[in-house]
Amino acid sequence: MTSTKADVTKTKRLADAVRVLSAEAVEKANSGHPGMPLGVADAAAALWTGHLNFDPTDDKWMGRDRFVLSAGHGSTLLYSLLHLFGFDLSVDDLKNFRQLNSKTPGHPERGETPGVEVTTGPLGQGIANAVGMAIGAKMASARFADNDFDPFGMTIYALSGDGCMMEGISYEAASFAGHLKLDNLVVMYDKNDITIEGASQLTCCENVDKRFESMGWFVLCVDGHDIGAVSDALAEAKKADRPALIICKTHIAYGSPSKQDSADSHGAPLGPEDLKGFKDKLGWPSEQFFVPEDVKEYAADLIAVKKAARKAWDDKLEIWKKADPARAGAYNNFAKGILPEGAFEKLLENAPDKAGATRAHSGAILQVAAEICPYLIGGSADLAPSNKSEIKGSDYVGPGKFAGRNFHFGVREHAMAGVANGLAAFGGWRPYVATFLVFSDYMRASIRLSALMKLPVIYIFTHDSFHVGEDGPTHQPIEHIESLRNIPGLRVLRPADAVETAAAYYYGLTQGGPTVIICSRQKLQPIKRDRPYHKAAQLSGGQVLVEGLDEVATLVATGSEVQLALEAAAILKEQDINVRVVSLLNRKRFLTRAEQDRHRLIPYGQPVCTIEAGVNDGWAALTGRRGLRIGLDRFGASAPASELAKFFGFTPEMIAAKVKAWLVQLDKLGRLSTGLN
Amino acid sequence: MTSTKADVTKTKRLADAVRVLSAEAVEKANSGHPGMPLGVADAAAALWTGHLNFDPTDDKWMGRDRFVLSAGHGSTLLYSLLHLFGFDLSVDDLKNFRQLNSKTPGHPERGETPGVEVTTGPLGQGIANAVGMAIGAKMASARFADNDFDPFGMTIYALSGDGCMMEGISYEAASFAGHLKLDNLVVMYDKNDITIEGASQLTCCENVDKRFESMGWFVLCVDGHDIGAVSDALAEAKKADRPALIICKTHIAYGSPSKQDSADSHGAPLGPEDLKGFKDKLGWPSEQFFVPEDVKEYAADLIAVKKAARKAWDDKLEIWKKADPARAGAYNNFAKGILPEGAFEKLLENAPDKAGATRAHSGAILQVAAEICPYLIGGSADLAPSNKSEIKGSDYVGPGKFAGRNFHFGVREHAMAGVANGLAAFGGWRPYVATFLVFSDYMRASIRLSALMKLPVIYIFTHDSFHVGEDGPTHQPIEHIESLRNIPGLRVLRPADAVETAAAYYYGLTQGGPTVIICSRQKLQPIKRDRPYHKAAQLSGGQVLVEGLDEVATLVATGSEVQLALEAAAILKEQDINVRVVSLLNRKRFLTRAEQDRHRLIPYGQPVCTIEAGVNDGWAALTGRRGLRIGLDRFGASAPASELAKFFGFTPEMIAAKVKAWLVQLDKLGRLSTGLN
Repeated sequence: MTSTKADVTKTKRLADAVRVLSAEAVEKANSGHPGMPLGVADAAAALWTGHLNFDPTDDKWMGRDRFVLSAGHGSTLLYSLLHLFGFDLSVDDLKNFRQLNSKTPGHPERGETPGVEVTTGPLGQGIANAVGMAIGAKMASARFADNDFDPFGMTIYALSGDGCMMEGISYEAASFAGHLKLDNLVVMYDKNDITIEGASQLTCCENVDKRFESMGWFVLCVDGHDIGAVSDALAEAKKADRPALIICKTHIAYGSPSKQDSADSHGAPLGPEDLKGFKDKLGWPSEQFFVPEDVKEYAADLIAVKKAARKAWDDKLEIWKKADPARAGAYNNFAKGILPEGAFEKLLENAPDKAGATRAHSGAILQVAAEICPYLIGGSADLAPSNKSEIKGSDYVGPGKFAGRNFHFGVREHAMAGVANGLAAFGGWRPYVATFLVFSDYMRASIRLSALMKLPVIYIFTHDSFHVGEDGPTHQPIEHIESLRNIPGLRVLRPADAVETAAAYYYGLTQGGPTVIICSRQKLQPIKRDRPYHKAAQLSGGQVLVEGLDEVATLVATGSEVQLALEAAAILKEQDINVRVVSLLNRKRFLTRAEQDRHRLIPYGQPVCTIEAGVNDGWAALTGRRGLRIGLDRFGASAPASELAKFFGFTPEMIAAKVKAWLVQLDKLGRLSTGLN
Repeated sequence: MTSTKADVTKTKRLADAVRVLSAEAVEKANSGHPGMPLGVADAAAALWTGHLNFDPTDDKWMGRDRFVLSAGHGSTLLYSLLHLFGFDLSVDDLKNFRQLNSKTPGHPERGETPGVEVTTGPLGQGIANAVGMAIGAKMASARFADNDFDPFGMTIYALSGDGCMMEGISYEAASFAGHLKLDNLVVMYDKNDITIEGASQLTCCENVDKRFESMGWFVLCVDGHDIGAVSDALAEAKKADRPALIICKTHIAYGSPSKQDSADSHGAPLGPEDLKGFKDKLGWPSEQFFVPEDVKEYAADLIAVKKAARKAWDDKLEIWKKADPARAGAYNNFAKGILPEGAFEKLLENAPDKAGATRAHSGAILQVAAEICPYLIGGSADLAPSNKSEIKGSDYVGPGKFAGRNFHFGVREHAMAGVANGLAAFGGWRPYVATFLVFSDYMRASIRLSALMKLPVIYIFTHDSFHVGEDGPTHQPIEHIESLRNIPGLRVLRPADAVETAAAYYYGLTQGGPTVIICSRQKLQPIKRDRPYHKAAQLSGGQVLVEGLDEVATLVATGSEVQLALEAAAILKEQDINVRVVSLLNRKRFLTRAEQDRHRLIPYGQPVCTIEAGVNDGWAALTGRRGLRIGLDRFGASAPASELAKFFGFTPEMIAAKVKAWLVQLDKLGRLSTGLN
């Protein structure tokens, strides 16, 4: 798109309207971040007017360009643009900035506001999301494009600030994008050289252009207030054969009489006086949230152009669909995330019926899941052989190669999760990512965002306890299962055998929101069930494995400790002590069930002992104060796993002895009326 | 140090001995990582023979160079070197590699093995630790060096693999090191281009030298098997005026007949056949753990040289000490971490006696703590104005400026924590780091290592609940307090007012292991105490604030919810319902106390209601199944904090109503005999 002088003048006016709306929204809320919107409005306006393809009346249009505001604190920039460009975001919405239940929360929130692609604010995440979206588009193109039409030929844009660039996740994501030569990715870097503590030179003296070039990026540097130059750079960036970084040199709080180039403008309103001076300089009236008629007309013209482009795309898609109805069907399934019927049964039927580590079962079931869902894609952060996370018979994604389903994510856990969020947010894809459970710490900020955005990412975390063995405490998760359960909306499943692993995949494959599947390194015996595993076990959170008439207690366990509980129960039975055994695949689900549902698994009033090879901080909700919680409240150790099991008390004999001693003690307290001695 | 031909030949033999010992240790354990030790033995031997200053009989010698094996999986490399160079690590210790309670755990563990500086294994962490150590040395030099002698003129070396280089934390740390122009830091990068999934080119095509140059590093590239070249590069690197990266091109599993250059050698023993072929090629006898006499003699010669250097250093230190006894006293205090008497009283006396956010109290108390402990240093990841984390009247550390106590860490949370670990591991320093509580997720892997290493790092996490307000769910911690508590050995304190904040600082300043101090964004009222705050409150985990004769329940709260509990109790009192109120600064401490101690805070059998503005997963240990846990099991929202308090039920009236309804219900269940209606 050429940028004529007239366009530039109009765009500048539009940018000024964005500035005023942004500053006024922050002023009215008496809270927010005006510095960034004022500084980057020109560059953003250059993108939105002349380059970004979208349809304001259909923010879910698959063929749209994606715009990710990685510097999420500048949310009013995005809201102002969405408002001016006719999205369903009124002046009243802008006035409600940062108010309860408004469509304009403090940071952009996916699902809350039309046109917001992802939730941003935690810095650097948006860059990784954009990389994921760009990969998602390339992979969809590889499957659906033909010589005449590519429904996924869009460009992914991200807007980043100095903060995003300093975060490790942005480095990891940028390195990965450079490796994959993502030519559909353009990152605009709002380089105002100001961070909260002052000039960014106080802490960072990098040659950013050289750094990105070293990672295989195409880099341009422009004056971010020169709309023509930014627009030309965008045109050039789109033509590059690799990801592009446009360094836009800007002034934070551009145009503010007293706060331009000052860190003070970052996170606080300009104040009435400065705001007045700012508007006066622009020739704006005192009326609040005013948008000049010429800006409205310009926006209307641009919307018409963009809607015409959308119409042309629709027409092409129709022809393309007719040319190949099978492909059109696949496209519809992809776009709508439709799975074939009977996924649950198919997964369960194909669960390996033998002893094995649940990570091995996961690897086998992953193949079935991949058959059921052709849009299941993923990989590991350099631990695929251990995580068993490869889809067999499918290629790895690489530069210029996007038809495969496997990824070599590299030793980049954080970006891996951020990329997965981007793939899921792009639409169509069901991404999974894998690493050792202990390294979930490296990606926790992104896992939280999966949950906050309700994105269907599957996390496969293997090597789930001290049973990791010789690698020692740095590699043995202790607190991780519990800490993942703490994250709201995160489905945390720790299967005990192949059957439960299959059930866990069913959840991950079919439900909204993210799913964590926690797998053992060590081999486990298959569980003998009297009744086949049923969906009801999923809904209640667990399954009763052993029950009897004279139960004196319930042992509740997860994962590898279920086998241990079963063996301990057998030992106790030999001593005429009958205990119930429950495998609790999904503790969070169990605890949200109604009381009578919970009592189907754990009878009312029955003493409860929980067994999990990790911290037991969260188990008292089941055991109460007098129950027994068998866990591990210390870091692990380096030794063969079987030695550690003895050392930490996780053998059937030791568990049985602990349970018996506890029951004896309870009996002494008069809480039981059984004949224990 | 010149590397003569004879030296090179001897060093090559020593490197071969390292190779054989490493491979045999892994073989005997039938577990471990031989590829890296074999590949990098030459380069490491070049460093240890010709450059690294140490005293094998005193691994705590302050003046030693530091060696950080960032690629911790190559632990046998380090163990073999420590053994050959006379540290207290015998052949039997090598034979016990990866066995329970051995001195040779799977990954290097600080405190377990003489000569191991930091615990490594989680990739990238060691680089950040080394950066912290290099800063620690520069800061100590700035305080103690004179024209004649610098006790802290050591060099910090780190050895990194391809994995470390891909991690975001290593980027953040390297960028920070480049900014600070740390001329005492040398990173050797063992570039074998192999990661677990195969060639690193499968996922990473960076120009690493250009990348590090862009961050201000001095970069050299050598053949990692050319000992002379490596030694020359080390000499050049030490002379550079900035941090140096020596890229050592190596072959993984160098010399292995069947596994050289193969990813298979990374994490599994070579196998008896390959090991035999490997040793045959080197001309080694079949005897296991054999060290040739010439290698022993060479090592003995080198040890003598190094001990002589140590002796010379000691002599200089003595002269230096005598020249300025006051300085010598300060040095001793620094080296031994000695604080003046009466720290507890001084902190408590100076706690602000007024309403204020605990982050503001923290900022005030930090000044007192800084007076008490001159080696308290720290800063924020670009949130100092919000975290209130600046030591007033002290400079910021910067390139060539190391006399200050404040840091601009930049938007680099993860490296900040890794650097703090390095500062603490260096010795002498008491580092603190600050950010928003929600962003503790970004640094969690490093926090875990603080706890595992028992390093006295203070984490100041502010903005601790939905009371953050308008910034919304991305900035509102919900699960974080609980998830931090899950980490073994991590002291998690959430003070309710200035007094408790002062007490929290006392913990952080004087105790071993890391301390998290969690502070509110919003203003809190000072708590009226009948009795002055006493150390006993610390030891028991909390303090009773309200008690009476007819208590029907205990309300337990932390941080900002203590004030809420007190106000709710007042409302209930007006209705003749007397409840006890306990502020539980340190829940973990409370739960480890003996039962009778716990009953001093919470009377036996009394119903318990807990109140904390976050997930309540961990509170059932206090409440039991029938207690009331008031928390928040969902993400936050964007709105003014006071609106959110109403929305989420955190007003005194709503809390009082919930407590009353619960008590009524309990009464119906026949568990209470009070006259409630």
